[in-house]
Amino acid sequence: MSTTLTMSKPELVALAQRRLAHAVGDSSWSARQKLALTCRILFDGGHDSGLAGQITCRAEQPDTFYTQQLGLGFDEIGASNLIHVDQDLQVLSGQGIPNPANRFHTWIYRQRPDVNCIIHTHPAHVAALSMLEVPLAVSHMDTTPLHEDCAFLAEWPGIPVGNEEGEIIAAALGDKRAVLLAHHGQLIAAGTIEQACVLALLIERAARLQLLAMAAGQIKPIPPALASEAHDWISTAKRDTVTFNYYARRALRQHADCLI
Amino acid sequence: MSTTLTMSKPELVALAQRRLAHAVGDSSWSARQKLALTCRILFDGGHDSGLAGQITCRAEQPDTFYTQQLGLGFDEIGASNLIHVDQDLQVLSGQGIPNPANRFHTWIYRQRPDVNCIIHTHPAHVAALSMLEVPLAVSHMDTTPLHEDCAFLAEWPGIPVGNEEGEIIAAALGDKRAVLLAHHGQLIAAGTIEQACVLALLIERAARLQLLAMAAGQIKPIPPALASEAHDWISTAKRDTVTFNYYARRALRQHADCLI
Amino acid sequence: MSTTLTMSKPELVALAQRRLAHAVGDSSWSARQKLALTCRILFDGGHDSGLAGQITCRAEQPDTFYTQQLGLGFDEIGASNLIHVDQDLQVLSGQGIPNPANRFHTWIYRQRPDVNCIIHTHPAHVAALSMLEVPLAVSHMDTTPLHEDCAFLAEWPGIPVGNEEGEIIAAALGDKRAVLLAHHGQLIAAGTIEQACVLALLIERAARLQLLAMAAGQIKPIPPALASEAHDWISTAKRDTVTFNYYARRALRQHADCLI
Amino acid sequence: MSTTLTMSKPELVALAQRRLAHAVGDSSWSARQKLALTCRILFDGGHDSGLAGQITCRAEQPDTFYTQQLGLGFDEIGASNLIHVDQDLQVLSGQGIPNPANRFHTWIYRQRPDVNCIIHTHPAHVAALSMLEVPLAVSHMDTTPLHEDCAFLAEWPGIPVGNEEGEIIAAALGDKRAVLLAHHGQLIAAGTIEQACVLALLIERAARLQLLAMAAGQIKPIPPALASEAHDWISTAKRDTVTFNYYARRALRQHADCLI
Repeated sequence: MSTTLTMSKPELVALAQRRLAHAVGDSSWSARQKLALTCRILFDGGHDSGLAGQITCRAEQPDTFYTQQLGLGFDEIGASNLIHVDQDLQVLSGQGIPNPANRFHTWIYRQRPDVNCIIHTHPAHVAALSMLEVPLAVSHMDTTPLHEDCAFLAEWPGIPVGNEEGEIIAAALGDKRAVLLAHHGQLIAAGTIEQACVLALLIERAARLQLLAMAAGQIKPIPPALASEAHDWISTAKRDTVTFNYYARRALRQHADCLI
Repeated sequence: MSTTLTMSKPELVALAQRRLAHAVGDSSWSARQKLALTCRILFDGGHDSGLAGQITCRAEQPDTFYTQQLGLGFDEIGASNLIHVDQDLQVLSGQGIPNPANRFHTWIYRQRPDVNCIIHTHPAHVAALSMLEVPLAVSHMDTTPLHEDCAFLAEWPGIPVGNEEGEIIAAALGDKRAVLLAHHGQLIAAGTIEQACVLALLIERAARLQLLAMAAGQIKPIPPALASEAHDWISTAKRDTVTFNYYARRALRQHADCLI
Repeated sequence: MSTTLTMSKPELVALAQRRLAHAVGDSSWSARQKLALTCRILFDGGHDSGLAGQITCRAEQPDTFYTQQLGLGFDEIGASNLIHVDQDLQVLSGQGIPNPANRFHTWIYRQRPDVNCIIHTHPAHVAALSMLEVPLAVSHMDTTPLHEDCAFLAEWPGIPVGNEEGEIIAAALGDKRAVLLAHHGQLIAAGTIEQACVLALLIERAARLQLLAMAAGQIKPIPPALASEAHDWISTAKRDTVTFNYYARRALRQHADCLI
Repeated sequence: MSTTLTMSKPELVALAQRRLAHAVGDSSWSARQKLALTCRILFDGGHDSGLAGQITCRAEQPDTFYTQQLGLGFDEIGASNLIHVDQDLQVLSGQGIPNPANRFHTWIYRQRPDVNCIIHTHPAHVAALSMLEVPLAVSHMDTTPLHEDCAFLAEWPGIPVGNEEGEIIAAALGDKRAVLLAHHGQLIAAGTIEQACVLALLIERAARLQLLAMAAGQIKPIPPALASEAHDWISTAKRDTVTFNYYARRALRQHADCLI
């Protein structure tokens, strides 16, 4: 009676991807709305360290970006209070000023045309892990989207306001999607807002798991080939959109104002 | 005046079981409602890792199952949005598609006619513990329902989408009610939805206690005979129903929509 | 201008005690109401492990007690659903049955006429600590009410349903107000409901501090004479009432139904 | 097109400070309101240990202070239930009595005319860290406002009710803004209520990060010169006001009654 019990794993993976592609639709949120939703999702996910942290995405006009207003927490960001800035952080439209530490975002955007959204935050577990000067340990299936995809800047260059820090952080990131910044925090650089949001939640979860496991014993590695396979299976654009949409619905139950 | 002060422990245990059997009634929830309640209870209990995790129970028609729709979080599951699938994960009724990783559930159902509900999740403490490749330590009275009843799969076979993983996980589980999956998560296979729910909450609590204790010192073993006695005392069908009903009432204060 | 800058510490302590005695009034809650409030306060304070845990206080009629109904969580207890039992756990009034593990409470009441309220729970940090078979470490001013006032039962006697466990636990407690039960939980035996509630919250906090500190380093002892002085200063009947009343007001913001 | 890519870091820092000074306004809350807001902010930030902890600020009349009423929790403090006391802790206006441990505050105010607000609390992570008798480790950019600005009192002098403890704690603090008190808690002494509030939240966060990191591995130091630079960059009066105002808005969503 069963027709799939004898199918090979590659056949089953392909079948599952086809089913997913057809079964779940995308959203109609604007970039501003997705950015605001991301702020609220991250706030609820522990990415709250006062006014530290910045999020940006490319705007339609080249070399310009949307970002949040300095002085507002992630829980206060809405589509209409985002500001539009150029790469000198001059405000093109919107109230207030951007976080001056946004400067290093523009260094990454210049280097990585594939990147459309950057999230830089200091959530508690990433921050604590960063004090140890050890790289992120990817030893769990769920965190494999960061397998060989999370760089490590072991030396802290000081407050990230200068152009020097822009060069240093962009170089450390290289062509990866994440970087753990010692004594500082994390940065995600992704092709879509959805993927950036999902990876930002994930790196904090990965840091939490790593701290819990290191405190209790010795973390065991996973086979790199299986980790790569899982990376590609879990971290597709489609799947990240589905996941983002779920987190967005959850956020909207408490933060419906963020879409305005 | 006291009449029970001189009774033996076996007499007192039997007396207590009789009293419990008569004093507390069962619920009238349907299987779908119990499954939806379980999703909400588990969500509130920390079994939240985005869209990872699947829950299934046998439906009336042989070799068919109820499960949640891929793309919905546990906090969004209700009796009426569950889907009915066959063992090839073809949808018999309901919207959307199941999680393709449900495949290994069917391997367990084929092997274990006594199992009517399977819960597979990646809650944070189970996940962190699983990175250490150590088995679950049962060293507390409350966690004795897992004493010699939690298997351990020390090797991670990769993403659980193939038939291979179904065979591997079913074999690792054997005739037990739980299995800790290294670098992955946990799986509960139980005779009733109520028991599966209670054990799923318990294994995450057990993992949390183990991590807390291992971080602080050396876990001491408990005498196996006493652990077995406690296992049988705590983990009766009646007691699990009473406990489930309590958690259900608690969930319904916030999630009344799940019954619909 | 200042008149107290030259007073000695004993004079200042006495002055503070006099001021406190006159400045803060007591409550008019009944014993049942205080017991129900305590259940809610403890629930919010993490003393939640499903249906484990019992709370009792002496009722007016000798050798009888109020306790909660088996099957209800601490968050469901109200003054009117408490049950009145004798020392054989026979129900004198109220619905349902008591937790059969209440048996060891009666052993303590017989041994300790000064005790009017007993709280036995398995909160997470006490439970994790209890797996290490180490006594409670009192190394912080706030936890000194447990200095030389928390016994330790290093051996787990199995499920506490028999008369044997009543004898063992009562003997371990001795004349102290608390006992840490290895592989099991904690028990508070106090003169008033208010004090029992405050000490139950405190022992879970003490266990949490101990686990956090042990995981990070080596706990340093405090001078016993200063610890004793702090024990007596912090843990007065008046102060515990003031503290209980505060926690009760806090609980009532969410749990006003418990007074009925 | 970009005009700031070639500017030096000092130029960029100065530019950012100028922008911030002009872009964000101050609040019009009274000292009493700011003090009440601080109580609510700290409560939500984990500075909750029953009735322990006191907060004071200078009132207009020399050598007099506003403080909270003994018996109320931080979540109950409002502008109108604060009391006005002199340095003997005699009540000049308001209901009830102050915490007798307030005594050591007056010792600090006498010694430090630059200090206008003192916050002394025992939040969980500071408390746990204090049991280890180790100083605060500043090894993260966010915690650099405490770099060489957090003293350490390694010996616990007993309950802080005497004049002795006032002298000891004031001496330990010296000219710094914070002191970690072994086996006790933390104390912040700052020029403004806003800064005191921000630093009090920060020291608990720093203690949490330290405990997490110490449990998992070896904390690595940061270069002192960079830490000093970050201290001065992050911890300006303007920035602390902006941060405080954000936390205040957040608190007001739940605690609007505190302004009355």
